[in-house]
Amino acid sequence: MASIFTRIINGEIPAYKVAETDKYYAFLDISPLQKGHTLVVPKKETDYLFDLEDEELAGLMVFAGKVAKAIEKSVPCARIGVAVVGLEVPHAHIHLVPLQDGSELNFSRPKLTLSGDELKACAAAIAGRM
Amino acid sequence: MASIFTRIINGEIPAYKVAETDKYYAFLDISPLQKGHTLVVPKKETDYLFDLEDEELAGLMVFAGKVAKAIEKSVPCARIGVAVVGLEVPHAHIHLVPLQDGSELNFSRPKLTLSGDELKACAAAIAGRM
Repeated sequence: MASIFTRIINGEIPAYKVAETDKYYAFLDISPLQKGHTLVVPKKETDYLFDLEDEELAGLMVFAGKVAKAIEKSVPCARIGVAVVGLEVPHAHIHLVPLQDGSELNFSRPKLTLSGDELKACAAAIAGRM
Repeated sequence: MASIFTRIINGEIPAYKVAETDKYYAFLDISPLQKGHTLVVPKKETDYLFDLEDEELAGLMVFAGKVAKAIEKSVPCARIGVAVVGLEVPHAHIHLVPLQDGSELNFSRPKLTLSGDELKACAAAIAGRM
């Protein structure tokens, strides 16, 4: 069965898309640690990040870097933190989280609740800076 | 002034080295979240991960993947988590943390205290699987 991320990439589940290439896809986490929290995934479904081929892993990280730079320009933050946990959804994904002091990169913290309009505006702001 | 990581790379500060290439260096975090917690850094001192050139960033991630595979073979874990916070030391570094259920990737948790002998044995085990 297709992962939830594959279904997002295929447009079967709506998402707040930030950026896309032929190989990679970025969209907002709808339960964000911080405003601008984005997930970056390879379109090819692979469970574990480090099972990607070297070229795919390299390309994914370079793409994530470009998305991070666009987030930085869209959301007030000191820099963008990175996390890969990956034990919930069997489709490798990189969390990009805007940080102020670093303590924000903690998945045990309560998630923000943003309205659909706020998420839409945030995604558009980031997408516009890609 | 050279960063603490540059001083480690240059051998001025002792560290538990795990792997090294001409461009990248990996060593154990001596205040680990989990046994096997490793830091991966570019030898060229750059504060912010996403200020690395695309090629450096790609190479760093591919190197981190190889280190992660060696950690997996050395420490009991479900997989290796990734975190980049980077607001403490102005030298980009990737944390590789062995995970069981994912909750381990939380820098607010108490760090483990391992003896020098334990760290040395752990570094040797990982290095031997590179």
